Amino acid sequence: MSLSKNKIKYIRSLEGKKHRKEEGVFLAEGPKLVGELLGHFPCRLLVATSEWLEASLVRTVAVQEILVATREELSRASLLKTPQSVLALFEQPSLHVNAEIARRSLCLALDGVQDPGNLGTIVRLADWFGIEHIFCSLNTVDVYSPKTVQATMGGLARVKVGYTDLPALLDSLEGIPVYGTFLDGGNMYDEALSETGLIVMGNEGNGISAEVAARINRRIYIPTFPADRLAAESLNVGVATAVVCAEFRRQAATK
Amino acid sequence: MSLSKNKIKYIRSLEGKKHRKEEGVFLAEGPKLVGELLGHFPCRLLVATSEWLEASLVRTVAVQEILVATREELSRASLLKTPQSVLALFEQPSLHVNAEIARRSLCLALDGVQDPGNLGTIVRLADWFGIEHIFCSLNTVDVYSPKTVQATMGGLARVKVGYTDLPALLDSLEGIPVYGTFLDGGNMYDEALSETGLIVMGNEGNGISAEVAARINRRIYIPTFPADRLAAESLNVGVATAVVCAEFRRQAATK
Repeated sequence: MSLSKNKIKYIRSLEGKKHRKEEGVFLAEGPKLVGELLGHFPCRLLVATSEWLEASLVRTVAVQEILVATREELSRASLLKTPQSVLALFEQPSLHVNAEIARRSLCLALDGVQDPGNLGTIVRLADWFGIEHIFCSLNTVDVYSPKTVQATMGGLARVKVGYTDLPALLDSLEGIPVYGTFLDGGNMYDEALSETGLIVMGNEGNGISAEVAARINRRIYIPTFPADRLAAESLNVGVATAVVCAEFRRQAATK
Repeated sequence: MSLSKNKIKYIRSLEGKKHRKEEGVFLAEGPKLVGELLGHFPCRLLVATSEWLEASLVRTVAVQEILVATREELSRASLLKTPQSVLALFEQPSLHVNAEIARRSLCLALDGVQDPGNLGTIVRLADWFGIEHIFCSLNTVDVYSPKTVQATMGGLARVKVGYTDLPALLDSLEGIPVYGTFLDGGNMYDEALSETGLIVMGNEGNGISAEVAARINRRIYIPTFPADRLAAESLNVGVATAVVCAEFRRQAATK
């Protein structure tokens, strides 16, 4: 079966969060990303060129519906600037947020991250640094936004991202270290960073909200160089998350 | 004077590299960014609401032409999703690439970075980490692209970004440490990183080109956690640059 106009319209409608949520699915594009996600999430629909289907092992995986399409049809369904030879709709997992995991491992919490690309970058780097759980405040951008999914580069297959009332979650976690970056925090290289707990990262423009900041018990700072340099007043949130996570993991590895 | 249709067309045409180069200017938008760049680059044209002009000290700075515009006019000239109360055209500086600086300080070299947002992020973090010079290969995206300029968050005022034949530049720098990240490089935390020299970062999809890789004499690696974890095969280039630069600066600060 080939790609109908209605199917194309349906796929493109998943750019909107409302439609994604109603349908309980998300869109991923490109051989590498789709390949990584197949087997991790049930696949509702896979659309690909005949060449891709022949070369791939997709037949061995349970896919609800497979459609062959021309490059031209795929490009009409695609949300990318450079359409790919395959796209797929996967089911959104229903994740139960269990913050207790932060007592046994290092987790991330995101407080109002707005940019889909930033969130995707954070999922990707969490994967790199072996951080398996990310707790997002309810006003954080949707992890199933197509831009985010693409930017995770498959990290979504391994990192669990859940949404929850972040202040309430922090209140439930009495006694665990909760880190956040602040301009008046302590130089993180002078701190003995823990191997479990939460690292909170804030919104691109406004940082960590007052409500969440009140619940942070370890205020840290990424030093500029030299430390007294008057420079940019902030780092991109993806970059800051990476530098902080790298330091936690460096210290853990050298213990 | 208010904003004519021709002026709006002219401003918007600067989204294209060709026009920017011919005119020798670049566009910046928003009070914070424009404020940071004024005084660093000659300003050809500044367009702002009367409110912004009254509140700002722009009269004290040499600006070739100032136009008052309504919010509505500004939004027609703007390349941003959320137009701001001010935009300005600055002259592109004519930078002479002098690689000798890498003998005395730590510099970055970019080999084919393609995404404007990534380049902007890298300029911003270079500013944070006190890296004042970035040498870009000729196929690296234009630093004066509006998306890049916005993403630098003003870092462009302090970080000098030049374009050059990167292999030739590396050949001219005999005897200095040239670092690059490779999957088979040495764990960077086990290396005594130098305080001068070059850190080369590569293209988003393909990494460092063979021609440049042959000229790298310190192959390093950002370890995953745990180090033997099979995870994502790469980090976003902005993120990787940040993690590497942070470690160079951490070591330098603790020497």
